[in-house]
Amino acid sequence: MPTNGKRGRRPAHGEPVVDRALALLAAFDADHRTLSLAELSRRCEMPPSSALRLANRLREWGALERDDAGRFCVGLRLLEVATLAPRGHGLRQVALPFMNDLAEVTHQHVQLAVRDGMQALLVERLSGHQAAPVDYRTGGRLPLHSTGVGLALLAFAPREVQEELLAKPVYSEPDNRLIPADKLRRTLAEVRRERLAIFRRQDETVAIVSVAAPIFGRGEVLAGVLGVLVPKRVAQPRHLGLAVQTAARGISRELGAW
Amino acid sequence: MPTNGKRGRRPAHGEPVVDRALALLAAFDADHRTLSLAELSRRCEMPPSSALRLANRLREWGALERDDAGRFCVGLRLLEVATLAPRGHGLRQVALPFMNDLAEVTHQHVQLAVRDGMQALLVERLSGHQAAPVDYRTGGRLPLHSTGVGLALLAFAPREVQEELLAKPVYSEPDNRLIPADKLRRTLAEVRRERLAIFRRQDETVAIVSVAAPIFGRGEVLAGVLGVLVPKRVAQPRHLGLAVQTAARGISRELGAW
Repeated sequence: MPTNGKRGRRPAHGEPVVDRALALLAAFDADHRTLSLAELSRRCEMPPSSALRLANRLREWGALERDDAGRFCVGLRLLEVATLAPRGHGLRQVALPFMNDLAEVTHQHVQLAVRDGMQALLVERLSGHQAAPVDYRTGGRLPLHSTGVGLALLAFAPREVQEELLAKPVYSEPDNRLIPADKLRRTLAEVRRERLAIFRRQDETVAIVSVAAPIFGRGEVLAGVLGVLVPKRVAQPRHLGLAVQTAARGISRELGAW
Repeated sequence: MPTNGKRGRRPAHGEPVVDRALALLAAFDADHRTLSLAELSRRCEMPPSSALRLANRLREWGALERDDAGRFCVGLRLLEVATLAPRGHGLRQVALPFMNDLAEVTHQHVQLAVRDGMQALLVERLSGHQAAPVDYRTGGRLPLHSTGVGLALLAFAPREVQEELLAKPVYSEPDNRLIPADKLRRTLAEVRRERLAIFRRQDETVAIVSVAAPIFGRGEVLAGVLGVLVPKRVAQPRHLGLAVQTAARGISRELGAW
């Protein structure tokens, strides 16, 4: 957990300033891609002078940029470094040709996700022109229990991760209904047996079916999941499932799972 | 330019520690995706104890992770933040469906790049199974004067950027031959006239043709370039050029250029 420099008042070895710098980065999200100095300072609970000084440090390095209107935004240098994340782009590089194949066959959203703590992180999505609009974006987080890729990640996660999630009441998204723990347990067992998660969801305007299969790395450790998201009217989940599983196995083989 | 904390010995407001934290991130590159503490400390010219303390701060936040072998690597949280970069993923989100179209038609490498200073940064690449192997990776940097996407970026860059590059001797990559400035000027004028860059290069094993077209945003400001990379034996640069230009115009239109 980030401490945001609140752990102690003493500048012990000067690290709280690192937390404050990281807090500046964390101030940006999908709804706040650019921030004025005033907004940045408010969102980080930091005086404008400190925010400006730190932001300029980050800007010198390239982690932040300033656009033509003088607003701060995340910089390209961060993208350059972030693409080195083995669990993200490493997997992505191997998966991309297989994802292209799936996109070419389905013309729908093809998703690659990994588990980060108790959430799924969408590492990549390919989307055709005619694909249904969806909420989730690359780099965004999804619930483990209420999406196809999430269920596939959860089903093959270590037992303690599953138990931690099952220990509290779990509600479906976006309709917020309680999912009984024993029902979720049965779902996860089925996903493990079939090596396929099929999840149906009613979005604001359209019924969506999400089909996802696990990707394994060396030693058959789960590396991520591959999923396809289609409107229900065009979905044939079982047929789609075969395609998704085939692509996921191709990626697993390249990763050295077998 | 990063100062890596060497600017002064006094911890003025504690910011040099921010530079040292950023130096830890910068220690990773495509050939060093994971680093032991000793390697990290050596590459950052920092005592292991300081490197560990800072690395753990970055790890708490998620900018770094430690793999099963205890080696440090770039973390998923950084990827999450980096995808918010408007010049990178913002453009990418709009471009991706058009890139998929091109990939589907050509089955070759389709590239999206932006200019970052005097280099091109590869924001995205889609690659088919059968695409020729190439050196450049997503998140990697390319020379402006010796690649198709680079030439297209340079041709539509502000005049002062072109003059800065032309002021020094320019050598082709990878064969390291001097490119006369007047020849490069003529090439850039042609790229502007045709709105298309065609660049031929002999790689280690295969002759490559790179075809790239500019993408414009609001006010017809250059937003990036779209390129296709094909082995010379399958290349029909003019035909390919029409496809690349068509896709680039589609992206420009979505960006509000016209």
